[in-house]
Amino acid sequence: MILISVPLCTMQIQFADQKQEFSKRPSKIGRRSLSRSISQSSTDSYSSAASYTDSSDDETSPRDKQQKNSKGNGDFCIKNIKQADFGRREIEIAEQEMPALMALRKRAQGEKPLAGAKVVGCTHITAQTAVLMETLSALGAQCRWAACNIYSTQNEVAAALAEGGFSVFAWKGESEDDFWWCIDRCVNVEGWQPNMILDDGGDLTHWIYKKYPNMFKKIKGIVEESVTGVHRLYQLSKAGKLCVPAMNVNDSVTKQKFDNLYCCRESILDGLKRTTDVMFGGKQVVVCGYGEVGKGCCAALKAMGSIVYVTEIDPICALQACMDGFRLVKLNEVIRQVDIVITCTGNKNVVVREYLDRMKNGCIVCNMGHSNTEIDVASLRTPELTWERVRSQVDHVIWPDGKRIVLLAEGRLLNLSCSTVPTFVLSITATTQALALIELYNAPEGRYKQDVYLLPKKMDEYVASLHLPTFDAHLTELSDEQAKYLGLNKNGPFKPNYYR
Amino acid sequence: MILISVPLCTMQIQFADQKQEFSKRPSKIGRRSLSRSISQSSTDSYSSAASYTDSSDDETSPRDKQQKNSKGNGDFCIKNIKQADFGRREIEIAEQEMPALMALRKRAQGEKPLAGAKVVGCTHITAQTAVLMETLSALGAQCRWAACNIYSTQNEVAAALAEGGFSVFAWKGESEDDFWWCIDRCVNVEGWQPNMILDDGGDLTHWIYKKYPNMFKKIKGIVEESVTGVHRLYQLSKAGKLCVPAMNVNDSVTKQKFDNLYCCRESILDGLKRTTDVMFGGKQVVVCGYGEVGKGCCAALKAMGSIVYVTEIDPICALQACMDGFRLVKLNEVIRQVDIVITCTGNKNVVVREYLDRMKNGCIVCNMGHSNTEIDVASLRTPELTWERVRSQVDHVIWPDGKRIVLLAEGRLLNLSCSTVPTFVLSITATTQALALIELYNAPEGRYKQDVYLLPKKMDEYVASLHLPTFDAHLTELSDEQAKYLGLNKNGPFKPNYYR
Amino acid sequence: MILISVPLCTMQIQFADQKQEFSKRPSKIGRRSLSRSISQSSTDSYSSAASYTDSSDDETSPRDKQQKNSKGNGDFCIKNIKQADFGRREIEIAEQEMPALMALRKRAQGEKPLAGAKVVGCTHITAQTAVLMETLSALGAQCRWAACNIYSTQNEVAAALAEGGFSVFAWKGESEDDFWWCIDRCVNVEGWQPNMILDDGGDLTHWIYKKYPNMFKKIKGIVEESVTGVHRLYQLSKAGKLCVPAMNVNDSVTKQKFDNLYCCRESILDGLKRTTDVMFGGKQVVVCGYGEVGKGCCAALKAMGSIVYVTEIDPICALQACMDGFRLVKLNEVIRQVDIVITCTGNKNVVVREYLDRMKNGCIVCNMGHSNTEIDVASLRTPELTWERVRSQVDHVIWPDGKRIVLLAEGRLLNLSCSTVPTFVLSITATTQALALIELYNAPEGRYKQDVYLLPKKMDEYVASLHLPTFDAHLTELSDEQAKYLGLNKNGPFKPNYYR
Amino acid sequence: MILISVPLCTMQIQFADQKQEFSKRPSKIGRRSLSRSISQSSTDSYSSAASYTDSSDDETSPRDKQQKNSKGNGDFCIKNIKQADFGRREIEIAEQEMPALMALRKRAQGEKPLAGAKVVGCTHITAQTAVLMETLSALGAQCRWAACNIYSTQNEVAAALAEGGFSVFAWKGESEDDFWWCIDRCVNVEGWQPNMILDDGGDLTHWIYKKYPNMFKKIKGIVEESVTGVHRLYQLSKAGKLCVPAMNVNDSVTKQKFDNLYCCRESILDGLKRTTDVMFGGKQVVVCGYGEVGKGCCAALKAMGSIVYVTEIDPICALQACMDGFRLVKLNEVIRQVDIVITCTGNKNVVVREYLDRMKNGCIVCNMGHSNTEIDVASLRTPELTWERVRSQVDHVIWPDGKRIVLLAEGRLLNLSCSTVPTFVLSITATTQALALIELYNAPEGRYKQDVYLLPKKMDEYVASLHLPTFDAHLTELSDEQAKYLGLNKNGPFKPNYYR
Repeated sequence: MILISVPLCTMQIQFADQKQEFSKRPSKIGRRSLSRSISQSSTDSYSSAASYTDSSDDETSPRDKQQKNSKGNGDFCIKNIKQADFGRREIEIAEQEMPALMALRKRAQGEKPLAGAKVVGCTHITAQTAVLMETLSALGAQCRWAACNIYSTQNEVAAALAEGGFSVFAWKGESEDDFWWCIDRCVNVEGWQPNMILDDGGDLTHWIYKKYPNMFKKIKGIVEESVTGVHRLYQLSKAGKLCVPAMNVNDSVTKQKFDNLYCCRESILDGLKRTTDVMFGGKQVVVCGYGEVGKGCCAALKAMGSIVYVTEIDPICALQACMDGFRLVKLNEVIRQVDIVITCTGNKNVVVREYLDRMKNGCIVCNMGHSNTEIDVASLRTPELTWERVRSQVDHVIWPDGKRIVLLAEGRLLNLSCSTVPTFVLSITATTQALALIELYNAPEGRYKQDVYLLPKKMDEYVASLHLPTFDAHLTELSDEQAKYLGLNKNGPFKPNYYR
Repeated sequence: MILISVPLCTMQIQFADQKQEFSKRPSKIGRRSLSRSISQSSTDSYSSAASYTDSSDDETSPRDKQQKNSKGNGDFCIKNIKQADFGRREIEIAEQEMPALMALRKRAQGEKPLAGAKVVGCTHITAQTAVLMETLSALGAQCRWAACNIYSTQNEVAAALAEGGFSVFAWKGESEDDFWWCIDRCVNVEGWQPNMILDDGGDLTHWIYKKYPNMFKKIKGIVEESVTGVHRLYQLSKAGKLCVPAMNVNDSVTKQKFDNLYCCRESILDGLKRTTDVMFGGKQVVVCGYGEVGKGCCAALKAMGSIVYVTEIDPICALQACMDGFRLVKLNEVIRQVDIVITCTGNKNVVVREYLDRMKNGCIVCNMGHSNTEIDVASLRTPELTWERVRSQVDHVIWPDGKRIVLLAEGRLLNLSCSTVPTFVLSITATTQALALIELYNAPEGRYKQDVYLLPKKMDEYVASLHLPTFDAHLTELSDEQAKYLGLNKNGPFKPNYYR
Repeated sequence: MILISVPLCTMQIQFADQKQEFSKRPSKIGRRSLSRSISQSSTDSYSSAASYTDSSDDETSPRDKQQKNSKGNGDFCIKNIKQADFGRREIEIAEQEMPALMALRKRAQGEKPLAGAKVVGCTHITAQTAVLMETLSALGAQCRWAACNIYSTQNEVAAALAEGGFSVFAWKGESEDDFWWCIDRCVNVEGWQPNMILDDGGDLTHWIYKKYPNMFKKIKGIVEESVTGVHRLYQLSKAGKLCVPAMNVNDSVTKQKFDNLYCCRESILDGLKRTTDVMFGGKQVVVCGYGEVGKGCCAALKAMGSIVYVTEIDPICALQACMDGFRLVKLNEVIRQVDIVITCTGNKNVVVREYLDRMKNGCIVCNMGHSNTEIDVASLRTPELTWERVRSQVDHVIWPDGKRIVLLAEGRLLNLSCSTVPTFVLSITATTQALALIELYNAPEGRYKQDVYLLPKKMDEYVASLHLPTFDAHLTELSDEQAKYLGLNKNGPFKPNYYR
Repeated sequence: MILISVPLCTMQIQFADQKQEFSKRPSKIGRRSLSRSISQSSTDSYSSAASYTDSSDDETSPRDKQQKNSKGNGDFCIKNIKQADFGRREIEIAEQEMPALMALRKRAQGEKPLAGAKVVGCTHITAQTAVLMETLSALGAQCRWAACNIYSTQNEVAAALAEGGFSVFAWKGESEDDFWWCIDRCVNVEGWQPNMILDDGGDLTHWIYKKYPNMFKKIKGIVEESVTGVHRLYQLSKAGKLCVPAMNVNDSVTKQKFDNLYCCRESILDGLKRTTDVMFGGKQVVVCGYGEVGKGCCAALKAMGSIVYVTEIDPICALQACMDGFRLVKLNEVIRQVDIVITCTGNKNVVVREYLDRMKNGCIVCNMGHSNTEIDVASLRTPELTWERVRSQVDHVIWPDGKRIVLLAEGRLLNLSCSTVPTFVLSITATTQALALIELYNAPEGRYKQDVYLLPKKMDEYVASLHLPTFDAHLTELSDEQAKYLGLNKNGPFKPNYYR
C-alpha cells in the first residue's frame, strides 16, 4: 500500500479579501443580467487558495526569471516550471470529469479540424482549461495563452502546460502591469500571428483592438464566453466596429441551464452550509428574483424543508413562482420574519439599508445574482454598526441594540465565493468553446458576417449529446418516417432556437 | 335551507366514441407539435356529456325551429331558448374563476377599446367562452358566433347568450352540413360585415377565404389560438396569400406554460386515477418525450412515488431529464418492466405493436401528446386480440395468452378525454384572445403587416399580471434607478421574447 | 377482434345520500382516531353504484326466493345466482392485483394450515373479499359469510361465491332485519359450528355474544380489522368479558402506512379533482392535523405546487411539520386567505361555523380524518344559508351576501366518498387477515390469552414481503455473520414493535 | 465601523487521523444501531480543528499548571484560563441558537427545580454544553464536569466555564491517563458528593461503579444520551446490577427524528459536497438501508436530481422505499453502474471488497450509518492497491488498472467527519438532558425503580414545544369538549409512546 498526498481534482474558487481595482468595466449588463458564468468573475479577485502547492518564499517575479522546460523551450512565463508534475496529475484528474472533450479528441483527431489554427487565449488557467487547450492542440491548433484574472491561475497547471510545450504567460498574483504584459506576450510575437481568439471577459480582444488592429485582417473569429465580454462585443457590433464574426457561447441553452438552474440548485445549499452550518428545515427564506437562478435556489430550499417566499418584477416569472408553490410577496411584507435573504435578480440595490435595519437578529443575507450590486453593502459601512469577521467570507454586522446580520461574501456571489464549480459544468463550457472555434474556423466564406452569433442550435445539441454518456443515458433516434412526419432532420436540430 | 340542484362550474370534456371524419386537416404540425390547447380538439369529437340538461325527446333540428328571446330577437339558432336561465347560472359560476376578464371589463369599460369592432367568432361554445363574449361586448364589440366543433356546444350556455342578445348559431350534435351552415349564418348577413375574426381551428377563416374573399378588405385582423389554425395561417403566409395580419395566441409564454407544463402536471394524475384507480406509489413508468408536457408528467409522477424513465430524441431535453433525476433509456430497454407507458412526443408511432407485444400483463398505455398518432392503435385491431371495454374510455386489449393491456381513450389525448381543463387555464387563453383583438383592432396603420405575429411580450406579461390577484400575489415594482440600471422600461417588457 | 363490455376491476365506493341509521355504535375512538380503514365505513351507507349489473325490475326479496347453484346446492341467500359468471370475471381481475393472497395459496396449499377451520365471516362482500375467501378455502377452511354493511355487497360477486359453493348470505340493499337475519343464518346452522371469527365492525361478534354465547367454547379466536370493532374488543377485554383471544389487524404497521400515509397522499388529489376540478398549483391550503393522514395530504399538495399551512395540537407533530417545510399556524390566522381547508385530526368540531363564516368565496372544505365529526356541518343547516347540490357529493353553501363555500361529501370522509381504494391496499389488509387467522388457529395452547393482540411483528413483515414482488423489489438477506453482529434472527423480526 | 475577528458559532467536528485506541467498548449495539448521536463519537477521535485559538507553543500539561480564575478560585484544570473571554463570546453566540434552554432558564428560575442537585457530568465540552451547564446552574444545580472524549474539548469554552466558577477538568489532547484523572477529579472531592449523573458514553458511570460504588447510595439517577452508554445501562439492568434509575434520552422521539431523519437529510449533501464537490444532478446512487438515516439521505438526493437505489433487509422498510419511489435492489445488481455508495445500515461488512472491486472508476464510497464497520476498509489495505490522500478526509484508492475509488473519512461517519452538526440539533438534545435531570431529581419516591426509562412522552412533547418559537410556529390548543371527546388531557401527552 502506497500513500501519496495529492490535492483533489476540483478547484475551490474563492474571492480574496483584497479587491482587484484596476479593471474598470461596465457593470450594467441589461437583460442578460441573470446569465452568469465562471468567467464573469474575470473582474473579481480570487483567493490564494486556488494554488495547490506553496511557494511562498520565492518572491522573485516570474518576469525576472529565466526558465526552460525539459526540452529546452523557454517561450513561456510562469511561476515555477518544477511544479509541472504536480500540475500534470491535476490535469489527468480533470480529464476524467471532462468526457466530452476527451471524446472530441478521439472523434476529431483523424481529421484535425483545427489544423493551421493559431489560437490566442485569455481565460482562467486551471486544470479544466488545460484539458481544453490540450484538446485544441490535439485537433491541430497552436495555442498561446494568458490569464483573464490576476488571481485565478493555478501555478502548477501553468507549469505542466509550459512543460508540455504551450506558450503560457500567467501566474497567480499578477500586478495590473503584469496582466497586460502577459497578454501582450501572447500576441506580440515574431513570426506568429493568431487567426482565432478565445476570450473570457474581453480584455484580450480589447488589447488587440487597441494595440494591433491590423491583426484582425487574419483573424477568422472571436469566441467569447463571459457576460461582460459578450456585452462588449454587442456594443462593438452596434457601433459598427466589430470587424470579425464573434460567437457568443455564454447564451447557449446547455450552458445557461447548467450554469444557472442546475448549478445554483446545488450551490445555494453548499454555499450556505459551508459558511454558516445553518439547518434548512423550517427556515423562512425570501428569494428575490425567479429567473433560472432563483428557480434553482427555490427548488433546492423547498426540498430541504425551508418555507420560501419569492419577490419578482416580471408578472410571467411571478405566475411561475405561484404555480410552483411559492408565496409571491414584496420584500417589506416578510423582511421582519425571514431567516435568510437571497438575491438573484441581476438588479442593483434590491436589499437596501432600510430592509437590513428591519431584519431579525441572526438573519443571513447573501447574493446569488449578479456581481456585488444587489445588496447595498456600502450602506452598512457606517459608524454605528460593528463588523465582526467570524469566518472566512462571513461577517456579523452588529446593530447598536445587539442585533446581528450574517453577511456572506460581503455581498458578492455566494456560489463563486463560498462553494465550488463542479468540473462537469466547466466541461460543458469548455466543449462549447472548442466547438465554436471549430465552427468559426471552418465556416465557408460568408456564413458569418461581422456580427455576434449564437452557437448554431445543432452544435448546442451536439455538446449536450457528448455529455450524455456520463449518465449512461441512451438517446432515441428518429425513424425516417418519424423525421418526415415531424419535418425534422434525423440529426437535429430538434427544437427552435428559443427553446429553453 | 334551500336545496337546489345545479351542475358544477367546470366542463367535463370527453371524446365520443364515434369519430368526426369530415374535417380533413393537416395532421403534420412540425416543431410546434407539443403545443396543445383545448382548441386543438376542434378536429375531435366530444361526448354528449358536455350538456347539462337533457332534452333528448326533442328531435327537431334547431334549423327547423323558430325561436325568439324574451326581447323578441330571433337572430340566432340554438337548441332551446328555454334553457337560458340554467346557462346563465353556469356563466356566473365561470365568472368567479375568470378574474382577469372581469378585471378587463372593469378597467377598459370606460374607454370601450373595441367600440365599432364587429367580431365574428368560431370557438367552443362553453360558459368560459360566454364570459369572453360578454367581455368583448362590454368593451364595445358586436359579436356573431358559431361553434368550432360539432359536439362541444353547451346548449344551455348558447341559450343564455341568445337570450342576452348575442347572435349565436350552434348546438350540440351538429351535422357537417349544419356546421358550415352555422358559420355561414355568422358572416353572411345583410347590413353587417365583420372587421375582426376570432378563430379556433381555422375553419371560419377558411370559409371566408373560400366564399367571401372580399370581406378581407374590411377585416383588420385574425386572432387564432389553435395549433392547427396557426399552422394553416403560417402556410398562407408562406404562400403569400395571407391578406390581413394574424395574431398567434397559441405560442404565448403564459399559455404554453399553463396548457403544457402546469396543466399536464395535474391532469396526468387525474386522468390515470379516474380511468384506472391505479396506485402511483412504487409504479414503474416510462414517459416518452421530455418537452413541457413530459416535464409536467414526470414531475407529478415522481412526486407521487413512481419510478420514472424517460425517452428522448433531443440531446438537450435528454440532458435536462438526467439532471432532473430521470434515467434516460430507449423504450425497448424498459418496455418489459414498466407498469405505465405515457407518450408526450408530438411524434407518430412512438409505441408500436412490437412494444405492445412485449409489455407486461396489466400495463397501462396512454397518450398525453399530440392527437392520436403516438400509439399505433390500429396495429391492435387484429383478429387474435380481444378488446374489452371495461369502463368509459378504458379498453382491455387481451392477447391470446391472457395478457391484458389497459388502453386509455383509444390512444387519444388522455387529458382531454379523461380529465377536465380547469377554468383558470381557460381564463388565461380567453384573456389573451381579448387582448389580441384589442391590439389588432387599435394598432396604428402599418404596425402589423400581412403576416402572423406573436402577441407582444408586454401583453403576454399583462395577461399574467391580471391573473396574479387570484393568488394574492404582490408584484414588486422597479425604482427609476433600477429600471435605468437594467435598461428596462418600468412597465415592461422585462424579458426577451424567447424567455420561457 | 372481439368487443365485450365488462366493468373495471376496481370498486368505486360511494356513500349514498340516505344514511344508515339503525347501527348505534360508539363514535369516540380515542387515540386511535387517525387509524382508518375501508372497514370503518361499516357504519356508513354505500351508493348503489357498487353493483355492476342492473336488476332493478326484480323486486322480490332474496329471502323469498328459492335458488340453487349449478351443483344443486342451495345453502345461500343472494340476489340472483344467474349473475355468477359476471362476478367470476370480477374476481379474476381482482386476483391479478392481489399477488400476496395468490402466493399464499400456492405456498401454503400443501400443508393446508386451515384444515378443520370453520370460519364465519362478516365483511364487505366484494371481489377482493372473494379472493380472500377462496384463499381461506384453498388453505383448508370452511366459510360462511354475511355482509357487514347493508349497501356494500356486490351482488354478482355474491352470486359467483354461491356458485362456487360458499354459503353466502348478503345482497345490496338489505333492511336492518335482513342484516341480522343474514348474520344469524351464518352461525345458526345444524351440524356446523364456527371455530374462527373474521369480523369487520364487530356486529357478528356482538351477535354471537348476545345470542349464542356458548359457541365461544369452540372458538379459537377473533380477527377484527376495523377501528370500531377493535375498540369494542378492547372494551370487552377491559371489562373482563373477552372470552377468546382476538387479533387486532387494524394497527399493523403495513396497514397503517398504506391506509393512511401512502393512500391519502394519492386520494386527497383524486378526491378533490373528481369533485371540483380545482387546479392545485398556487392554491393556499390549510391542513388540520399532521399525523399520517395529514403528512400524506401535505406532501401531495406541496408537490403539486400548493402553499400548505398546518395546524396541530401535538408539539412533536408540529415540529415535524416545521422541519418538513410547512408554516404551523392556528386556523384563525389563515382562514380568511385559504382556498382549501382539509381536516385530518380525528377530532371533532375542528372547523366550526365561526371559521366557515370567515372563509373566502369559493373556499373548498373537506374531511380526510375521522367519520363526519371534524367539520361542524350541522351549524350550516340554518335558514339564512342556501344549499345547492351542484354535483354528486358537492354542495355549494351560499351566504346571504352571495359568498359560496364548496362543501364536499357533506363533511364525511372525502377519500371514501369521492375517490376509490386501490385493490393493492385492500390486498394488504386481506393478506393480514388471512395470516391472523392462520396464526390464531395454529397457535399452541397458551400462546394467546383472552386478550386483544397485535399481529406479531414477524407476520407483519411477512405480509410486506409478499407484496414486494409487485414492485420487482429484491430484498437483501443477512449473512450469518451479520445476523450475529446485529443480534437478529436472519428471518426477522428486524425491528422493534414500535417501529413505524 | 469596528472590525473584530471572531470564529463562527458552530463547531466543526472532525475525526483526527490518529485513532483513540484505549477505549475498548462494545461495538455491537443490536437493534438500536441506527440511533446515532454526536455522543456516539465518544469512542472516536476528533481533529484538532475543534479549537478556535492556537496555543501550540504551550506544551506544559494542564495537570502541571496552577491556574486561578479572576475570583481566585482554582478548582478546575484546563488548558489556559486566559482564553476565557474568547470562550464567553462563543457561549453567547450558541445561546442565540438554543432558545429552549434559555426559555427553561427563564421559566424555571423562580422555583429552582434543581436546588440541591449536585450534578457530575461527562460530555463533550463545547459552547453548547456550556449553555446547558449554565442553565443547570441557573436552575439551582452545582456542577463538576469532565470531557467524554480526549479530543473534543474546546479549550476556550472550558476556560470561560472555569472563569464562571465551574469545576471543569478537560482539555483538548488528553492522554488516556489524563482522561481518567479528569473524571476522578470530578467525583473524588472532599466535602462534595454527586447526587445526579449526566453521562455521554458511560465512562463516568463505569468509573463510579468501579471506584466508588458507595456513591450510588446518594445518587438519584443517571441521565445518559449515547447509544453506547444506553447499551451499557441495559446490560447492567439485565444483569440486575443497576442500582439507581437511569433515563435513556437517546431514544426520545424528538432526538431520533432530528439526529437521524432531518439532520441526515441535510448532512449527506453537505458532507459529499465539502469532500468531493460532486454534482448531484443525474448521479446514480445506492443507499444501503432505509431506516431514518437512509430515508433522510434518499429524500435529499432525490430532490437534488440523483437517481437513487435502495437496499434493505427488512420487508417493511423495503415496501416503504418502494412507495417512496426508489428501486429496491440487491447491491450486486447496481454496484457496477452507481456513482456513489452510501451505507446507513448499522450493520457490518455491507460493502465488502468484492463490491469495491466491481465499482466503476471514480465511484464515491461513504458511510452515514454506524461507527466504521459498514464498509470493509481493512480489505482495501492490500499491497496491490495504492492509496492517495487527496484532501482531508478523502482518499483515492487506486487499482492496478488505474481505477480509482473515492473513499471518504476512511469509512467512518461522514456526517461527523466531514460536515457539522447544527447547534439547533444539539439544543434539542441538551434540553432533553436538562428535563431528564429535573424529572429524575424531583420524582416522588417509587416513581422510578432501578431500571432504564424513556423520558415520559409528555416531557418529550415539552422539549418539542420549547423549540417551536424558533419557527414562529403556533400550536393549537384543545377545547375542553375536544379533549373529552378524544379522551386526552389538554396538556398532553397526545400520542402513544410508540408514535414516531
